[in-house]
Amino acid sequence: MNVAVVGATGYIGDTLVKLLAGHPKANLKVVTSRSKSGQAVSKVIPALRGVLDDLNFDLSDPETLAARDDIDCFFLAVPHGTATEYARPLVDAGKKVFDVSADYRTSSAEKYEEFYGPHPDPDLLKEAQYVLPEITPEGWQSKSIFALPGCYPTSIIPPLYPLLQAGVIGKEHIVVNSVSGASGAGRKVHEDFIYCEVTENAKSYSIPKHRHLSEIEEQLGHAGRGDVVIQFNPHLVPMKRGIATTITVPAGNSSLDELYDCWRSAYSNRPFIYVLDSSERPQTSATIGTNRLDIAAVKDERTGNFVIMSAEDNLMKGAAGQGIQIMNLWQGWDEATGL
Amino acid sequence: MNVAVVGATGYIGDTLVKLLAGHPKANLKVVTSRSKSGQAVSKVIPALRGVLDDLNFDLSDPETLAARDDIDCFFLAVPHGTATEYARPLVDAGKKVFDVSADYRTSSAEKYEEFYGPHPDPDLLKEAQYVLPEITPEGWQSKSIFALPGCYPTSIIPPLYPLLQAGVIGKEHIVVNSVSGASGAGRKVHEDFIYCEVTENAKSYSIPKHRHLSEIEEQLGHAGRGDVVIQFNPHLVPMKRGIATTITVPAGNSSLDELYDCWRSAYSNRPFIYVLDSSERPQTSATIGTNRLDIAAVKDERTGNFVIMSAEDNLMKGAAGQGIQIMNLWQGWDEATGL
Amino acid sequence: MNVAVVGATGYIGDTLVKLLAGHPKANLKVVTSRSKSGQAVSKVIPALRGVLDDLNFDLSDPETLAARDDIDCFFLAVPHGTATEYARPLVDAGKKVFDVSADYRTSSAEKYEEFYGPHPDPDLLKEAQYVLPEITPEGWQSKSIFALPGCYPTSIIPPLYPLLQAGVIGKEHIVVNSVSGASGAGRKVHEDFIYCEVTENAKSYSIPKHRHLSEIEEQLGHAGRGDVVIQFNPHLVPMKRGIATTITVPAGNSSLDELYDCWRSAYSNRPFIYVLDSSERPQTSATIGTNRLDIAAVKDERTGNFVIMSAEDNLMKGAAGQGIQIMNLWQGWDEATGL
Amino acid sequence: MNVAVVGATGYIGDTLVKLLAGHPKANLKVVTSRSKSGQAVSKVIPALRGVLDDLNFDLSDPETLAARDDIDCFFLAVPHGTATEYARPLVDAGKKVFDVSADYRTSSAEKYEEFYGPHPDPDLLKEAQYVLPEITPEGWQSKSIFALPGCYPTSIIPPLYPLLQAGVIGKEHIVVNSVSGASGAGRKVHEDFIYCEVTENAKSYSIPKHRHLSEIEEQLGHAGRGDVVIQFNPHLVPMKRGIATTITVPAGNSSLDELYDCWRSAYSNRPFIYVLDSSERPQTSATIGTNRLDIAAVKDERTGNFVIMSAEDNLMKGAAGQGIQIMNLWQGWDEATGL
Repeated sequence: MNVAVVGATGYIGDTLVKLLAGHPKANLKVVTSRSKSGQAVSKVIPALRGVLDDLNFDLSDPETLAARDDIDCFFLAVPHGTATEYARPLVDAGKKVFDVSADYRTSSAEKYEEFYGPHPDPDLLKEAQYVLPEITPEGWQSKSIFALPGCYPTSIIPPLYPLLQAGVIGKEHIVVNSVSGASGAGRKVHEDFIYCEVTENAKSYSIPKHRHLSEIEEQLGHAGRGDVVIQFNPHLVPMKRGIATTITVPAGNSSLDELYDCWRSAYSNRPFIYVLDSSERPQTSATIGTNRLDIAAVKDERTGNFVIMSAEDNLMKGAAGQGIQIMNLWQGWDEATGL
Repeated sequence: MNVAVVGATGYIGDTLVKLLAGHPKANLKVVTSRSKSGQAVSKVIPALRGVLDDLNFDLSDPETLAARDDIDCFFLAVPHGTATEYARPLVDAGKKVFDVSADYRTSSAEKYEEFYGPHPDPDLLKEAQYVLPEITPEGWQSKSIFALPGCYPTSIIPPLYPLLQAGVIGKEHIVVNSVSGASGAGRKVHEDFIYCEVTENAKSYSIPKHRHLSEIEEQLGHAGRGDVVIQFNPHLVPMKRGIATTITVPAGNSSLDELYDCWRSAYSNRPFIYVLDSSERPQTSATIGTNRLDIAAVKDERTGNFVIMSAEDNLMKGAAGQGIQIMNLWQGWDEATGL
Repeated sequence: MNVAVVGATGYIGDTLVKLLAGHPKANLKVVTSRSKSGQAVSKVIPALRGVLDDLNFDLSDPETLAARDDIDCFFLAVPHGTATEYARPLVDAGKKVFDVSADYRTSSAEKYEEFYGPHPDPDLLKEAQYVLPEITPEGWQSKSIFALPGCYPTSIIPPLYPLLQAGVIGKEHIVVNSVSGASGAGRKVHEDFIYCEVTENAKSYSIPKHRHLSEIEEQLGHAGRGDVVIQFNPHLVPMKRGIATTITVPAGNSSLDELYDCWRSAYSNRPFIYVLDSSERPQTSATIGTNRLDIAAVKDERTGNFVIMSAEDNLMKGAAGQGIQIMNLWQGWDEATGL
Repeated sequence: MNVAVVGATGYIGDTLVKLLAGHPKANLKVVTSRSKSGQAVSKVIPALRGVLDDLNFDLSDPETLAARDDIDCFFLAVPHGTATEYARPLVDAGKKVFDVSADYRTSSAEKYEEFYGPHPDPDLLKEAQYVLPEITPEGWQSKSIFALPGCYPTSIIPPLYPLLQAGVIGKEHIVVNSVSGASGAGRKVHEDFIYCEVTENAKSYSIPKHRHLSEIEEQLGHAGRGDVVIQFNPHLVPMKRGIATTITVPAGNSSLDELYDCWRSAYSNRPFIYVLDSSERPQTSATIGTNRLDIAAVKDERTGNFVIMSAEDNLMKGAAGQGIQIMNLWQGWDEATGL
């Protein structure tokens, strides 16, 4: 199967390119970039030196890409708003679109607008499906656009979803704190992200209404307990990659065993959600370069809360790795192929 | 006034030594260390090269120190449990003790035992006073032992205390998440703290019952709302210094203006608790090398919570700097002298 | 082919385990550790969670390992001095030994003693061969022990060797400066390597006689210009992985083109020594996770020197990756298999 | 004495502002910035919160500044090329100019042009004096413009100058390798300096002709051995602040004692050049926040070279701190005042 990556110079884009270059069943055919067009991919992404030296960045416009008969599957690693420019002609041409941006993560244009501004192409929302592979019910494969979850949501939704669904926890007083490395902001050339400003610094940001709340709350709302509103406090810390999330939620009458039984039942046969013992702590370094989300929980008998912790590589399970996992599942391959 | 620092080779101890070496009113007379005894202080603490080249580490035992007529004031920068070995003879000799350890932070031996194990000298607790200068009521100067607050508590108690006292917030559902640099663990030679394990890694630890909860909850309990139990989730992130704390607490009927009025009334004349605008975000890098705690808050209209954020240098306002501040206040000097 | 890794809890050892766990032709059968014996490998090396969950650390002694009929190939990732304890019985039993330590890197016990102290088993030196795959002449495969080069030597020997051999450079006034990340010291639990001491710090060390000079100078001596003595200045900088080396050597009458021709002739068909354009700069981040050594050079017309630069991942091409490459070549597989 | 800082939002500028805010004899009167004009200085430079809350950034043009009767002394912390726009009117108005830029570091416009392009105001060069306080001969105080040395030169010239002057070393085969933190590039918003590109990365750059060679070689040329040409290899490593320099130079017939005697004779009464024992190693972390340059040397008996090592804080002794030191000396104050 031939694949294209559109916008391959960001951190998610270049991770997709690296993964696809080593994928045993997908063939990376086209890699586009506005800024690097004409250059060898291996000049810009040094991990590919000696591996993929004969592919150059392409500057194809959406229509030209849509007209390629030899390519079925397009990863869009471009900013929200821009993704639509590619998605529309590709979908019209019958292609499958894997979208890294936020453009198709919410099912409603109103919710999108509340968090991102007016949706550039609301009609296309019905062709799209948010796919968090361990959560999203079967049947998603038939849609044209697969919206890849954001990095924070991937660390937050899987530990909570089955617990809400099973009633092990309620939906009140859910407090989520996350810390993220700087690549979560992409290859952003802004004073706030230069080395001297990020190193030896920790701070919260986007409080109280980070954009990822739109997809987190929509997905958690599907668990059957009604609308969910959570407190989400993201932080930037001096790392390149990695998200660690810590969630506090009242345990009510539930025991830690019930929580773990629920998780094990949901995830024991899924390779990429890994349930640690309650005595172990997820840590980002354990996940870097892998497609795993590690999760663990304790019950705090003093406060009556569960404290749920997770860790992931934001560029892998939180973005590009999950995209490959979704491609594998869509094709009916083992979900771990090439990961 | 002549001063001694006992145990000056840890990160808090060497910060105390640097601050005292530059203090215009205190004279650093004795610096002790078991491991570095006999060596020049400036060989071990390079910031003192050319500044304090003629002082050597001393190996005096507690009794010898207590017998020094020329020294009134002793900073103990030794581990909990060990502090008592020095505190007892020093107090008996009529000296003032500034204790960095946890030995005198709780007023009750039972509470100490719950978090740290049996207290080594409970009788001495009545001679001691926990001093968080902006919170602790006047009168503490007469005690023999001043217990310096822990690094996390200094970032947590000041933003909450006046709000609890004034009823701007209640005591239920207080969730505190903090991230700390590695110096919070001291100069700890353990595999978990070697560079390769800490860099590019974020993780929670000591959940659910970090030892600092003992002093946090005791102090917040003095605010007049009865016993306080909080959720406290500490994290280690790849920094040398700095703590950033984010607190979620239901706002009830209170407005953000009420919160800010309460803070300004409490802290407007105190140089070391700095109230940022609600649109600003405390960040640890802004506080490194200073004795400031920066605080800010927002109200999340979606969840009905206040989100309160603070940042400090854990070795300064969170430890050594606050110790100097307390010394200054005890002596009746400007609290910012030498800071 | 079944393989064992002895001493798998250091940074080189765990990298070997990860590589072998994913190698398509080698089967990782035994992994030993004194400190982690009995524990699941995937508990200690989290990259293997979900990948290799059924293998436990073993505590086999050298004789037991030597008696295993099912294993042909042993990687020794133990400190120098200890390697010999395993090498002797394994060689006697006809096994192939891949030794990460320094025990068999020099051909002479005298040279070893000069840099490391008395050699623990000099008789075994004649069974051993130093293997830097792109340099070492064919025929090494018949030896019993393959001594893997050190991390620094791998960044220094390949750029210099063909130039010396071809007479493009002479052997006088060769000055080598290298900077290394902290994993070069292994998983060393020592105060000098805790996070707070390494971060935001750069320093030279082991000047003037770093132990790796023994193998660097022996190998360069084989280039046919007589004994070679170089200046080698290593430095520690705040990174986990990576070595960047900068070499100054008088160009004499040679041109930059001659240098590049020599390199291209030596390495154009070798996947793991990658010759960059003279305008490009090797950087460690470009090599992390790969088995590549990137090299480039400029001629400084002002000084008449060549400045030669290289970069590698010290745990990959500088250690474990090169070990796998050697195993592949020994077996007659493509040298990039599993890399 | 009233002082102004022009261009105070770069890393050198803000360090100057912090130092001047705490200086006991200088009064910081004006702080200018094009981008932050009108904002409170303490909003932009958080170290000044609570310290200097009533000073705002100013947008004065050069002529307005020159007309200020109340200010005698101007620090220019603007890029090269721009400094001249301020220097000309200030000098014409009889002010003293402390220039952080490169505009007046070379005495010849031709040398400047070779490294920086055409000099914007060559006539002014004769009013200027390069001041490296421990090297520059007395008499410099009468000039109008004091050119502050660059960060690398400050780490390179002092260890070499007295040795060249005394004939302890010759001028041939001097090889200088330096590693620098990212603040050496200033607050540069460029993709190469974003956190994710700098962290976990080491690389050389500006080889073979870094601009600082112009001042290094001019100053070393004053040592009396004729024109000096050196090999200079700078590197960027993942730190915020700090430069570590390692110099290789043939020892000839000189002994290490002769080298140390020469250094001690030159620097024993200077507080900011600190001669370490030959067994000690300069390290950047030991100098951060101080105005010290630490130096040490060994003799490599194998190669016949001296290896000379130095470390400094590039923003202090390498820039702003040295500027304050020069101001102190010019005023006849103790050179360590406020440092």
